[in-house]
Amino acid sequence: MYRKQIKVLDCSIRDGGLINNYQFTMDFVKAIYRASCDSGIDYIEIGKKLCESDEYTREKYGRWNFCDEEDLKQVVSSHKCENPPVLAVMLDVDRVDVKSLLPADQSVVGMVRIACYVPDIDKGLDLVKRTKDLGYETTINIMASSAVIETELIEALQQVNEATEVDYLYLVDSYGAFYSEQVTSYLKLYKEHAPNKELGFHAHNNQQLAFSNTQQAIIDGVNLLDATINGIGRGAGNCNLELLLNFLKNPKFDVRPIYKVIQEHMVPLRKKIEWGFNDIYGISGHLNHHPREAMKQRANAETKDNCYDFLIDSTAD
Amino acid sequence: MYRKQIKVLDCSIRDGGLINNYQFTMDFVKAIYRASCDSGIDYIEIGKKLCESDEYTREKYGRWNFCDEEDLKQVVSSHKCENPPVLAVMLDVDRVDVKSLLPADQSVVGMVRIACYVPDIDKGLDLVKRTKDLGYETTINIMASSAVIETELIEALQQVNEATEVDYLYLVDSYGAFYSEQVTSYLKLYKEHAPNKELGFHAHNNQQLAFSNTQQAIIDGVNLLDATINGIGRGAGNCNLELLLNFLKNPKFDVRPIYKVIQEHMVPLRKKIEWGFNDIYGISGHLNHHPREAMKQRANAETKDNCYDFLIDSTAD
Repeated sequence: MYRKQIKVLDCSIRDGGLINNYQFTMDFVKAIYRASCDSGIDYIEIGKKLCESDEYTREKYGRWNFCDEEDLKQVVSSHKCENPPVLAVMLDVDRVDVKSLLPADQSVVGMVRIACYVPDIDKGLDLVKRTKDLGYETTINIMASSAVIETELIEALQQVNEATEVDYLYLVDSYGAFYSEQVTSYLKLYKEHAPNKELGFHAHNNQQLAFSNTQQAIIDGVNLLDATINGIGRGAGNCNLELLLNFLKNPKFDVRPIYKVIQEHMVPLRKKIEWGFNDIYGISGHLNHHPREAMKQRANAETKDNCYDFLIDSTAD
Repeated sequence: MYRKQIKVLDCSIRDGGLINNYQFTMDFVKAIYRASCDSGIDYIEIGKKLCESDEYTREKYGRWNFCDEEDLKQVVSSHKCENPPVLAVMLDVDRVDVKSLLPADQSVVGMVRIACYVPDIDKGLDLVKRTKDLGYETTINIMASSAVIETELIEALQQVNEATEVDYLYLVDSYGAFYSEQVTSYLKLYKEHAPNKELGFHAHNNQQLAFSNTQQAIIDGVNLLDATINGIGRGAGNCNLELLLNFLKNPKFDVRPIYKVIQEHMVPLRKKIEWGFNDIYGISGHLNHHPREAMKQRANAETKDNCYDFLIDSTAD
C-alpha cells in the first residue's frame, strides 16, 4: 500500500549543476526532463535563478544557474506528456533579483524553492512572500540544520510556521551527517514547532544513508521527497531517484525511463564528472563538516584517496 | 551510550575472496589482520575451509579458501596485540572435510561459521555439532532467507533453536533485497521461533542499504554484526566496517587503523578488482534475485553499465 500524499521532486539538474557549474547541454537537460515526465515524477527542479552580473556571468556559471524563461520553454516544449511535472527553480538568498521573476501565470515555472541558512531566515521568508505574491508554489529549505544551535533553529521554525506563504518546509541534511535516529529527532522538532507546515526532506549520501534516511523521513510523515537520477549531486550526491521509485509502491511511477536515461546519458557523464559516496565524504559526513574540505581533497588527483590523512587532518586539535 | 554486548566481525577476507578466488597475498591478509587487531574488532574471518581435491586446488582456488593452520599461524604471529580478535573460518555444507579440523585447543581458529541454505539445514546443524564437539564457538548462517517459503524457514529456525551447539544464528540478506522494514520483520520471526539464540546479521549493499540495515538490526536486538573494510565483498559488497565503527560508540573501537589500511592497501586493490554498489546490483537487489546474473553483466566490459537493458531482461515474462 502506498501513501497517496507522497510526492517526488527530481533535483538532478539543480544539485548536479553544483558539480559542473551548470554546464549541462540543452540536450542533456531535455533528456532528464523527458525521463522525469515519463516516469511520473511530481516536480523537477531545473536549476537556480541567480542574478546575472559582472561576477556571475552566464558563460562562467552556466545557463541553468539563471534559468531564463526562454531556456526553460525550450526544455518543456521538447516533450509532451499527459501529466508533466511541475517545474521548479531554486533561489539563493542575496543572489537573486525577484524583479526578474515573471508572474507565475506567465511562466512555465510552477514552484520556487528558497534555500537559506538559519541566520538568513528573515531574508528567506521575505523571498518566499514575494514569490508567493507572484503566484508560485513555495518551499523554504533550511540548510545545514545539523550544524545549528537548537534554540536558533526552533525560533526559525516558529517563524516559518507563522508564514502562511510557505507551502513546504524542508529538513536538509546538507552535510550528510544524519543517521536515521537524527532524521526522526529533527523531524519531531520540525513537527513540534512548525505544525502548520507540510514537510520536505533533502538528503546527502556521505555515509551511504541518503536513501535509507529518505525512507525514514517517509516513516516519520514527510510527503515531499528530493532525489536525483543516479544520485547526482554535490559531493557524495543525493538519494538515488531510481532506488526511491523502486521503494515507493505508487503505481503512477514507472522507473524504466529513469534507467533508460541513466544508460544513455548518465553513464557517459560519469566518465567526465565525479559524484557519489567515497571514503573522504564518509569521514566528512560522520564529522558533521561542511563538504568543502572533502571536495578540495577529492579535487587533488594525487591525494584524493588518502582517507587516513584526511581523517587525521580533520580531527587535529 | 553504547550496548556492551555488541560485537563486530570483520569478514573482509572471506567475503572479499569471493571476488578474486581468494588470491590475496600473505602481506595483504597480514595488513587486514593488523588493522582488525588495532581497531579492537571482536572477530576476523580469514577465509573458508574447503576440502582440497582435484577440482578444488589451492592454486586455482587460493589459499584462503582452505585456511591451512600453518598459513593462519603466519598471519596471527605477524602482529601482537593485547586483545586480538577471535579468528573465524567459514564452512560450506558439502564442500568440507570436518576431519581436517584440529581440536580447537590445538588451532589458532576460535570460531567456525557454517553457511547453509534452508533445505540443507540438517547438514548444516550436523556440521555445527561436529565443530562444537571440537571446542569451537559456532554460528549458523542461513543464506538467502529472502527467497525461502516462510513455513520452511520457520521449521529451520525451530530446529536451530533446539540445537544447543549453535552459539549464533545469522540473518543473511544474501541478495541485498531487504529494506529496514524487512530486517525488522525477519528478525521478529527469528526471535519468535529461535528465542534461545543470540542473533547475527550479514548485509549486502545492492541498494545502498547494508549499513542502514545493520543499524536497523542493532535497533532490533542483534549483537553480532558482520562488516568488511571498504565494504569489500561479492557483488555489491557488504556493510562498510569503517562506517559501522563510526556509528558505534563503544570506546574499545578505534577506526583509524581501518582508514590506514584502506589508504595503504584497499585503494590499490580497488584498481584491480571491483565491488560495491552500482545500477546493476541495485536492480538485482530490488528484484530479490541471486546476484549471479548481475555479476555476469558486470563482467562484460561492453554492456556492464547497460542498466535499462538489464532491467528489461530481468523482468521479461
